[in-house]
Amino acid sequence: MTKKEAISDRDNALFEAGIKLGALYHQFIGTPVSTETLELLERTIERSVALQPGVKSVEVIINSEKVRLAANQFKYCELSGAMLDVKVVVVYGQAEVHVRLKYEAELEYPLMRVEKVSEVTS
Amino acid sequence: MTKKEAISDRDNALFEAGIKLGALYHQFIGTPVSTETLELLERTIERSVALQPGVKSVEVIINSEKVRLAANQFKYCELSGAMLDVKVVVVYGQAEVHVRLKYEAELEYPLMRVEKVSEVTS
Amino acid sequence: MTKKEAISDRDNALFEAGIKLGALYHQFIGTPVSTETLELLERTIERSVALQPGVKSVEVIINSEKVRLAANQFKYCELSGAMLDVKVVVVYGQAEVHVRLKYEAELEYPLMRVEKVSEVTS
Amino acid sequence: MTKKEAISDRDNALFEAGIKLGALYHQFIGTPVSTETLELLERTIERSVALQPGVKSVEVIINSEKVRLAANQFKYCELSGAMLDVKVVVVYGQAEVHVRLKYEAELEYPLMRVEKVSEVTS
Repeated sequence: MTKKEAISDRDNALFEAGIKLGALYHQFIGTPVSTETLELLERTIERSVALQPGVKSVEVIINSEKVRLAANQFKYCELSGAMLDVKVVVVYGQAEVHVRLKYEAELEYPLMRVEKVSEVTS
Repeated sequence: MTKKEAISDRDNALFEAGIKLGALYHQFIGTPVSTETLELLERTIERSVALQPGVKSVEVIINSEKVRLAANQFKYCELSGAMLDVKVVVVYGQAEVHVRLKYEAELEYPLMRVEKVSEVTS
Repeated sequence: MTKKEAISDRDNALFEAGIKLGALYHQFIGTPVSTETLELLERTIERSVALQPGVKSVEVIINSEKVRLAANQFKYCELSGAMLDVKVVVVYGQAEVHVRLKYEAELEYPLMRVEKVSEVTS
Repeated sequence: MTKKEAISDRDNALFEAGIKLGALYHQFIGTPVSTETLELLERTIERSVALQPGVKSVEVIINSEKVRLAANQFKYCELSGAMLDVKVVVVYGQAEVHVRLKYEAELEYPLMRVEKVSEVTS
């Protein structure tokens, strides 16, 4: 048996935060990147994602050591999930959520997770 | 002031559901499609998304009338958000959420929204 | 010094063939895939690419052994260049070109190359 | 009957130029963009594409008027082919080719075409 419930600000904030990480990942993975261009790419991902409604902040770090190691003879590689550490904060009504995309070496997987959910009280 | 709270199954289910819709959108938008290939593309999106953990069901409808209208002289177009109606059900622990991506004509926007959240009681 | 020259059918056929491979690669890389869904994904890529003008044939093989090896605990992985072997034949006017995308183990690189150029004589 | 021919620098230059435009298009289409971020996005696309071997120059112009018109209530839109004017110069051996992606209003189509092929003589 299931019990249906009303949808809260918190629910919507979490849903929106998931959309932002899923979209960002599939939009930018595959982009050619080098140690010379990674800062520019970080800023571009941050500012593109921050255009969307409800996004309070975005912080993107591309691991330069992994880019260097993955680089081919032409000194660049494709951006992959293993290189990314992304933090996004989304606000929806009274709810604020902090989510993160970070490669987990043990899982060999770019894990997306909820780090914090807060209720904004006035 | 903010009050931090524990993260529930419901929170994670909503976050995961958002990830699935955001990822799907940016993965498949831009794919060449015609009225001849849209059913194949629908099934492929459904089965690809359903591979991911926690996805209970996926239903993808590509609007054939919109594909026909958008088709160029070569009888195909690129898949766009306006053509999509996608329903995904995600389960995480005791929580089940139903989410949807559907173009809203008034907003001129492919809206993603939470349609239902249920607690699975035994 | 450079010498400018007229653009031939052969030139255009090669240019178009490059477009098709470059587009296909960045469109489909990242799609969730398993040994269960790879045939469906192969057919979908083939039929999507074949919609475009000038494409005479497309053959996509996704290496099932590599998919199996790359699969995570949930038995799927993301489609990567290393898994793909794609042959496309493009015709433009009197010219026909055969191109291929295939992972080269020595180069650790999904190489795109021209395999054959023919002049279609009547 | 077809007559097979050897593959020249010119052939390879055209093929590579096509790959670059096809890849660029499907990599960046869909990125959120506003009149505030379009210059940053232009530079990022240029520098990302220029990392690849054989690319002599890349010039990307995103039409700010079209971005403004396409913007939703949140003042951003998704990057589309209609907004792009991209020029790429590729060199392969003794051949240099100039290609362009530009929206053609009459065709309602983001056309990719070869603008010039030169033989580099010493």
